[in-house]
Amino acid sequence: MMLTLPMVYDAQRVLKGVAEETPMIHATKINESLYLKSENLQRTGSFKLRGAYYKVSTLTEEEKERGVIAASAGNHAQGVALACTSIGVKSYICMPAYAPIAKVEATKAYGGEPILVPGAFDDAAEEAVRLSEEKGYTFVAPFNDEKVIAGQGTIGLEIITELPDVDVVVVPVGGGGLISGVAYAIKQIKPGCQVIGVQTAATPSMAASIDAGHVVKVEDAPTIADGIHVLQPGDITFDICQQYVDSVITVTEDEIAVAILTLMEKQKTVAEGAGATAVAAVLAGKIDTKGKKVCCIVSGGNIDVTMLNRVITRGLITTGRLTDLTTKLVDKAGALMEMLHFITEKGANIVNIHHERESMRVAVNECVVHMILETRDLEHKEEVLAALRQAGYMIY
Amino acid sequence: MMLTLPMVYDAQRVLKGVAEETPMIHATKINESLYLKSENLQRTGSFKLRGAYYKVSTLTEEEKERGVIAASAGNHAQGVALACTSIGVKSYICMPAYAPIAKVEATKAYGGEPILVPGAFDDAAEEAVRLSEEKGYTFVAPFNDEKVIAGQGTIGLEIITELPDVDVVVVPVGGGGLISGVAYAIKQIKPGCQVIGVQTAATPSMAASIDAGHVVKVEDAPTIADGIHVLQPGDITFDICQQYVDSVITVTEDEIAVAILTLMEKQKTVAEGAGATAVAAVLAGKIDTKGKKVCCIVSGGNIDVTMLNRVITRGLITTGRLTDLTTKLVDKAGALMEMLHFITEKGANIVNIHHERESMRVAVNECVVHMILETRDLEHKEEVLAALRQAGYMIY
Repeated sequence: MMLTLPMVYDAQRVLKGVAEETPMIHATKINESLYLKSENLQRTGSFKLRGAYYKVSTLTEEEKERGVIAASAGNHAQGVALACTSIGVKSYICMPAYAPIAKVEATKAYGGEPILVPGAFDDAAEEAVRLSEEKGYTFVAPFNDEKVIAGQGTIGLEIITELPDVDVVVVPVGGGGLISGVAYAIKQIKPGCQVIGVQTAATPSMAASIDAGHVVKVEDAPTIADGIHVLQPGDITFDICQQYVDSVITVTEDEIAVAILTLMEKQKTVAEGAGATAVAAVLAGKIDTKGKKVCCIVSGGNIDVTMLNRVITRGLITTGRLTDLTTKLVDKAGALMEMLHFITEKGANIVNIHHERESMRVAVNECVVHMILETRDLEHKEEVLAALRQAGYMIY
Repeated sequence: MMLTLPMVYDAQRVLKGVAEETPMIHATKINESLYLKSENLQRTGSFKLRGAYYKVSTLTEEEKERGVIAASAGNHAQGVALACTSIGVKSYICMPAYAPIAKVEATKAYGGEPILVPGAFDDAAEEAVRLSEEKGYTFVAPFNDEKVIAGQGTIGLEIITELPDVDVVVVPVGGGGLISGVAYAIKQIKPGCQVIGVQTAATPSMAASIDAGHVVKVEDAPTIADGIHVLQPGDITFDICQQYVDSVITVTEDEIAVAILTLMEKQKTVAEGAGATAVAAVLAGKIDTKGKKVCCIVSGGNIDVTMLNRVITRGLITTGRLTDLTTKLVDKAGALMEMLHFITEKGANIVNIHHERESMRVAVNECVVHMILETRDLEHKEEVLAALRQAGYMIY
C-alpha cells in the first residue's frame, strides 16, 4: 500500500467532528513572521489522535471485534486509547512498568487498558507485538504506517487552508510520522512551500539517516523532548522524508527549554519538549523568517508538570535571568555580607543562598557559598560576575 | 459623570483594532458547562489594556501633551504603558523599588517610563498622585474611574455576543473595575444572567464591603493572586457592585493553585493567580454549573515563572499527587531501607529524600527523614500514610 493524496483527504473526512481543527495562532509576541499550528490544543493534548483514529477507522469489523494493541508511554497511548473508545473498539496499551503514574492514569481515563511491562520501552514494544500475534489484536504502529501517516497529514491540509500564503512549515520529528504526512500533503498541493524538520540534537535519528542515505540507529541519550525520543526512523517514514522534506535540522536541549518558556510567557500556551522544537529552531535563528510566513507545528502539550519546573529553571538560566554561581569565602565574621555588597550594588536579587562551612571540599578556614541570583539578561549576569571577580572572588 | 451603556459601546468602538477580541474557549476538558473568556491572551497579557486605553483616548489634546501617570507593579502598569504608547502619549509608571526586574523591564518594553519609589506600594501610589499634581500629568486610576470601568465593560459585550445563552458570568475581583464594567453591561442587556464575583479569601475587600453595606478596608495578607491584592475597593466600583453583582464569593490560596495547575494541564493555557480565581470557584464546587452555561473570565496570564514553580508544587500537594512527609527513624543500619519498603509496596515513587542526622530537633540516636513522594491522589496518599503509621512510624 502506498500513501496517496486521496488517502489524506479521506482521513480528513473521517476525522471531521472527532479531531479538532486546532487554532492557527499568529504569534506576534514572539515574531511577526511566526504562526503556530496548535496541536497542543488537540484532544488528548497532541496530534497523535489523528493518525490513530484514521488507522482504527479503516479496520474490518472482525479486526475491530478482536481489539487493538499499541506500545507507548506517552501521546500515542492516549491517541490510540481515545480513538478506540470513540469507535467502540477495545484497546490495550503496553507501557514500561516505570511509566509515570500520571501517564498510566491518562490512558485509563481515555478508556485504554494499560499493560505494565517490566524493563525498558523496547520490552513493552516487543510484548505488544507478541500479544498482537497471540491474541489477534491489531498492532497500531506509532509512525511507520501509511494510514497513521495519512491521518497526521490532515494537519498539512489544514495549514494550507488556514494560511494559504505560508512559505515555510516547520515540524517536530521523532519517528517521522507527523512530518511524513504533512510534507507529503503540502508538497502535492503547494510544491513551493518549504518543509523543514526539527529534531533534538540528543537523538537526531532522521537527520542522521538522511545524511547517511539509509536508515540508521543513533545512540540513546536523555532529552526533555520525550515525544520525539526515537532512535531509529521507520523505513516508510524515511523514504517519504528523503523525497519530500527539504531539510532536517537539530536544536539543543537548552534551546528547547527556552522555547517552552517563551511560549508560556509570551503566548500563554503550554507546549511539551517535542512540541516546542519547531519554535526552538526559529528562536535560535536556525530558520530564515525574514519577510516570510513561517508556520511551526506545536505538536503536543503533555508536559509533566514536575518536568516543567525543571524546564523553567533551565530556560531562565540559559537566558541569563537566573544566575547560578558558587564561590568560596574566608570563614570570618562579615565575609558573606561583604560579598553580598557587590551583588546588591549591581542590582541583582538573591533568590536562594546556601552557605556551607562543613564541606569536605574546602579548607578548614574557608566556606562554600552557592547562590541563585535573579538577573536581567546574559549581559547583566556578566556584569555581576565581572564585579565579583574584580573584587577577588573565584567563581566556580 | 456616571457610567452609561453608550459609554461602554463607545469604548468598544474605540478599542476596535487595539484590544483583541479574545477567544471564548469551551473548556470541555474541565467541565462541559465551562467557557473561558481568555483575557490572558489579550495584548499585555491582561484585560487592563482595555480600560487604560479608553481612558487615555478620552483625554484632551492638552492633557495628552502633558502625559499620563499611574502606579502599579503589575498588569495596570503594562496596560497604561501600551495604551499611551499606541496613542502617542508619554507615560510614567510609579512602581515600588522592590518590584521584580521582569515587571520593570516589561513596562519599559511597552514604552512606559518606570519611576522606582522606595517603600511599599502605597508609597508608589502617593508619589504618583504627588507627581500628577506637581507636573500636570493625568493620573490613570487602576479601577475607580468610570472611563476605565467602561473599557473593562467591553468584555461583557463580547461575552453576550459570543455566548448569547450564557447563564452565569464569573469574574475575578480586586478593586472591582473589571466586574463593575462587566456586570453593568450584562445586566443592561441580559438582566437574567447572573454575575458572580470571586476574591481571594486572603484579602476579600469587596465581599467584606458588600457585607458591611459600605466600603471597608481589610487587613493585609499574602496571596498568589497579586493582581487582585487590593485592601479596599473604590467608592464607584463599590456602588456599581452593590447594585449589579449577584454575589461576591471567595476562594482559598490552595484552590487558586489547583485552578492554575488544572488550566495548564487540561487546557494548556497559562493563567496568573488573579486570572484563575473564577475557574477556582467552579472547580471548588462553589458555583452551580448543572445544566448551565458558565463563563469564567480568565483575566490575566502574567504569572512570574518562578512563582509558577511554587504554584505547581502547591497544586500537586493539594490534590494528593505529591505527598510531603516528615518522619523520624532510629539511627541504625537498614532503618531507612526498612521504611522505604512500606512506601514502595504501596506504589508511591520517591521524588526527593532528605535524611538528616545532625539536627538539633532529634535525640542523638534518631534521625529525621523528609520525603516528597509521587502519589496518585488524596486517597492513595492516605493509604501510604496509613501503612507507615501502622508500621509504627510517626508522621509529622
